[in-house]
Amino acid sequence: MNRIITISREFGSGGRTIGQQVAEKLGIPCYDQNLLDRIAEESGLTKGYIEERIENTRRSWFTSASADRSPRNTSYIWSVQKKIILDVASQGPCVIIGRCADFILKDQADLLKVFITASVPDRAKRVVEKYGENGDAIEQRLREKDISRSSYYRFYTDMEWGICKNYDISLNSGLLGIDRCVEIITSMY
Amino acid sequence: MNRIITISREFGSGGRTIGQQVAEKLGIPCYDQNLLDRIAEESGLTKGYIEERIENTRRSWFTSASADRSPRNTSYIWSVQKKIILDVASQGPCVIIGRCADFILKDQADLLKVFITASVPDRAKRVVEKYGENGDAIEQRLREKDISRSSYYRFYTDMEWGICKNYDISLNSGLLGIDRCVEIITSMY
Repeated sequence: MNRIITISREFGSGGRTIGQQVAEKLGIPCYDQNLLDRIAEESGLTKGYIEERIENTRRSWFTSASADRSPRNTSYIWSVQKKIILDVASQGPCVIIGRCADFILKDQADLLKVFITASVPDRAKRVVEKYGENGDAIEQRLREKDISRSSYYRFYTDMEWGICKNYDISLNSGLLGIDRCVEIITSMY
Repeated sequence: MNRIITISREFGSGGRTIGQQVAEKLGIPCYDQNLLDRIAEESGLTKGYIEERIENTRRSWFTSASADRSPRNTSYIWSVQKKIILDVASQGPCVIIGRCADFILKDQADLLKVFITASVPDRAKRVVEKYGENGDAIEQRLREKDISRSSYYRFYTDMEWGICKNYDISLNSGLLGIDRCVEIITSMY
């Protein structure tokens, strides 16, 4: 089984950047947005449509507990995503960002499961400064993102997202800084 | 404000040993069972009585949602515990194991909040080997301990126990080993 690092992260915590830098340091591939290209290619759906479906599904959980939880093509997208993650994991060591990869690969790879968190003010600062997002009601939007990621994860995995016991290491990137997180994760691999 | 390391941990994860070794390496005091001596002295209650009260309170949450959640002296013990933790934290840098110290000190100290986890089989192995506990139904007992610690923490803090976002670092001691955990925490201080 290949050694694979999965990075789960709160929006704005810098988890993606950390994963990319860890992969670079270790000289292994990092799968992130490029997985979306593969899902689009394999499914015959456009990237925009896939992103919208996932976002809509998440939003429906957030806005109403009784909302339709199986909108059009969502299960199909999930099955393609699962197939592609199993495929990249079979090819060699790598870093995979998000997409419930920790759950999908739990018996299929030698995993190092990482979670990246940061305080709401630290994340708000990051998304405004780095991604140029609008600062209006940013903290509220971050909390909504947390709830939607958590609901999406629970729906497909029947496990809790962001619970210490589900990860080998969880780090507060706001306190430690990106570089120190990269160093700790790389040294653990 | 003093720099203080709080260690929250699942039963059997080795969190207490990790905390003690971190304190030793850093040359600062470690408060653990010795806090119980202080609570007994300050409250005028015996250690055995205090332990029994806390354990009974936890058990009542576990066995019945409608059980009496404020048994005799529990609030009094909590208030004494809080006072003593604030007192030791005001005296200088230290490590504090458990006792909701991360919550009690949240605005009173410069905290490094640590959580130690390990898989149920790893924890079962540890408590049987190190503490000589009976191995019968050990995994079930560990799960009950998790629930009781979690309920106790939620009752007094109104926060969730064992959630990544509430800690600066969480480590799987079963995967990393005690020494590596001590090394990582010490290097972060």
